[in-house]
Amino acid sequence: RIGRPHETGETAMDMHELTSELKHSNDSKIVLLVADGLGGLPMEPGGRTELETARTPNLDALATRGVSGGLIPVKPGITPGSGPGHLGLFGYEPVKYQIGRGALEATAIGIELGPNDVAVRCNFCTLDGDGKITDRRAGRIPTEESAPLAKRLRDVAIEGVQILVEPVKEHRFVVVFRGEGLGGHVHDTDPQATGVPPLDPVAVDDDSRRTAEIAREFVAQAQKLLAGEAKANGLTMRGFSPRPALPSYEEVYGLKAAAIAVYPMYKGLARLVGMDIVGTSQTLAEQIATLKENWNKYDFFFVHFKYTDSTGEDGNFDAKVERIEELDAVIPDIVGLDPTVLIVTGDHSTPSKLRSHSWHPVPTLVVSDVCRADRLAAFGEADTVTGGLGQFEAKYLMPLALANAGRLGKFGA
Amino acid sequence: RIGRPHETGETAMDMHELTSELKHSNDSKIVLLVADGLGGLPMEPGGRTELETARTPNLDALATRGVSGGLIPVKPGITPGSGPGHLGLFGYEPVKYQIGRGALEATAIGIELGPNDVAVRCNFCTLDGDGKITDRRAGRIPTEESAPLAKRLRDVAIEGVQILVEPVKEHRFVVVFRGEGLGGHVHDTDPQATGVPPLDPVAVDDDSRRTAEIAREFVAQAQKLLAGEAKANGLTMRGFSPRPALPSYEEVYGLKAAAIAVYPMYKGLARLVGMDIVGTSQTLAEQIATLKENWNKYDFFFVHFKYTDSTGEDGNFDAKVERIEELDAVIPDIVGLDPTVLIVTGDHSTPSKLRSHSWHPVPTLVVSDVCRADRLAAFGEADTVTGGLGQFEAKYLMPLALANAGRLGKFGA
Repeated sequence: RIGRPHETGETAMDMHELTSELKHSNDSKIVLLVADGLGGLPMEPGGRTELETARTPNLDALATRGVSGGLIPVKPGITPGSGPGHLGLFGYEPVKYQIGRGALEATAIGIELGPNDVAVRCNFCTLDGDGKITDRRAGRIPTEESAPLAKRLRDVAIEGVQILVEPVKEHRFVVVFRGEGLGGHVHDTDPQATGVPPLDPVAVDDDSRRTAEIAREFVAQAQKLLAGEAKANGLTMRGFSPRPALPSYEEVYGLKAAAIAVYPMYKGLARLVGMDIVGTSQTLAEQIATLKENWNKYDFFFVHFKYTDSTGEDGNFDAKVERIEELDAVIPDIVGLDPTVLIVTGDHSTPSKLRSHSWHPVPTLVVSDVCRADRLAAFGEADTVTGGLGQFEAKYLMPLALANAGRLGKFGA
Repeated sequence: RIGRPHETGETAMDMHELTSELKHSNDSKIVLLVADGLGGLPMEPGGRTELETARTPNLDALATRGVSGGLIPVKPGITPGSGPGHLGLFGYEPVKYQIGRGALEATAIGIELGPNDVAVRCNFCTLDGDGKITDRRAGRIPTEESAPLAKRLRDVAIEGVQILVEPVKEHRFVVVFRGEGLGGHVHDTDPQATGVPPLDPVAVDDDSRRTAEIAREFVAQAQKLLAGEAKANGLTMRGFSPRPALPSYEEVYGLKAAAIAVYPMYKGLARLVGMDIVGTSQTLAEQIATLKENWNKYDFFFVHFKYTDSTGEDGNFDAKVERIEELDAVIPDIVGLDPTVLIVTGDHSTPSKLRSHSWHPVPTLVVSDVCRADRLAAFGEADTVTGGLGQFEAKYLMPLALANAGRLGKFGA
């Protein structure tokens, strides 16, 4: 039941309780086009942002038909990583649903976590003869040297548990322990200092004792396998985490959802909320083709465009402008499919000026026949400030999408 | 204590804890003029809404003096019924304070529920010789046939409990059990299928066992009284609910409040929060006369205008425009009383285009000498988007009203 008052007098307010109860099906189609890191900043005071600089006739036409606003990824002033950024867009309160670091890293490299998995971020380190750490990052060993070492650790064998080891980059790799009854709460073994040995893996709770034992045994076997390696003869483990328990899109929205993404991180995040990963697109054109091919099979499509973020992270204003124009060029193809609701947004801002994610609201557009269009005729940061959606937290985007799609019933009589 | 964070990571923010603590009295007068379903949509892209189409010189003059904004009835994307819509306007978090279906139906037909009452929505149904349902709505029996049957059920007599039976419409009627120690949690008896008998009333908790027994006995006696009726020889019971426990306007705001409404539903909702129902107005002119007559007796006046909603529900754009103009015409009479704070809003939008309630923000005006007027000079959906109140949840309207009336002290030193 919705809205049980609890002892403090506050409602356990969860939009998913509302949408789960009020959702119903119809034959509408919703497209969520995410330009990662879309929002930006002018390079100089009084200047234009990347989006305002880009020539975007198609997005501007959508802004004329639709309603715009500024999406706050988590809370004002809070800059999200990709995990919380996307969970917010998907309507999962990012402060409530936190994805452990190990699980996020595993997700990012394409490991499909199951309910019996515990994922761990590992670092190669350098140990001296007494087992004390001399370099916590193994001299930032190049990936071509570290990857074979990570793969060598696949020889570790522990009774009753399946072990996955995947290289990531430089000194980083991921380990997944897969088995029944493995709790996910074990302290990090990185002492955050040199001159001391790695810490022993210690369980935080009783359910995680077996996990800690397995981790200890893994380290012991791994160190034998790495013995004699000059740079990477030891390892530390951080961010032990189980697969996050997220209710699915089907459960909370009644939507059969497809994700069309190029990078493993975004496929993984979509998979965590129960979306099907469709296609094997490597380019935006291929993503649009995949969207068309699957149009009749799904209610909801998450289309992820990475390069507005990566160009921003590079601090390359002009390249970000070009990427926005590239995205604008495919808008007619999406509009041509006649979606009931088309949303264009980002998971956060990535201003080229900052070369990083930021907290700034993300320009967001919702277009439908019943969206109550505002007076805007262009899509850009300064314009959306006076948009009809106002500024709103990301978690309200999906309820708005469902409402515009006619998929939510009335709350109360 | 206010604002304890709780386990879900959300703050326990309850506006009533704040207003109860900060409220104080003065001789200000607040008028809350509710045009039910006020917000709308253009019928065609690029067109105007009902409110934007209507000629509203008096509301526009208020918009010039006042501050406007978009009121979100519950949460973005959520469409409320009349119950949660009004509770929101009255400042009662609608997800926390949910009115049971039985209690709302009883309220809507003018039954004044007390603390010992359990209200139930009932349907006449048709039973075959084996007691199995052949028609769950008794062939949608006309009200003129069903009302006498409902009244016949007033002959049911059960020791220790008073029973009220009131016809509603067609197959629907309301039963209220009034007595000490009656819990309100009993499962519905409508099996939602034909070919099976009605379900036995089953208590959800121990406190409701006696209620379930009474319901069972009511059904047994009722079926004897209905024996031989061709269409309506049985009944099902749904939405068992107690009178909702709402703190009063006096408690949370320190306001002596009056409600001036034509329809029982809105009188009933006002009564649930402790307002006095004044007058017996049938027209808007009579409502304004009632307002004048009671001006010196109350601090707060809720004036409810129904027809902006009913014309919207009918899909009659032109009629809704006319009703808005009718409302505009009485504004000078209200302004003439010199209220300290005058608020014009709606409990939700009811766009003629949708022929139903909707989630869209409701154009809202707050006028006082200290409201900090914005730059708007007209009252309409597209204008209010840039209004000084921004977009805000309904539950913040009453605190704003109290503040503008000088009725809230400083929070903290």
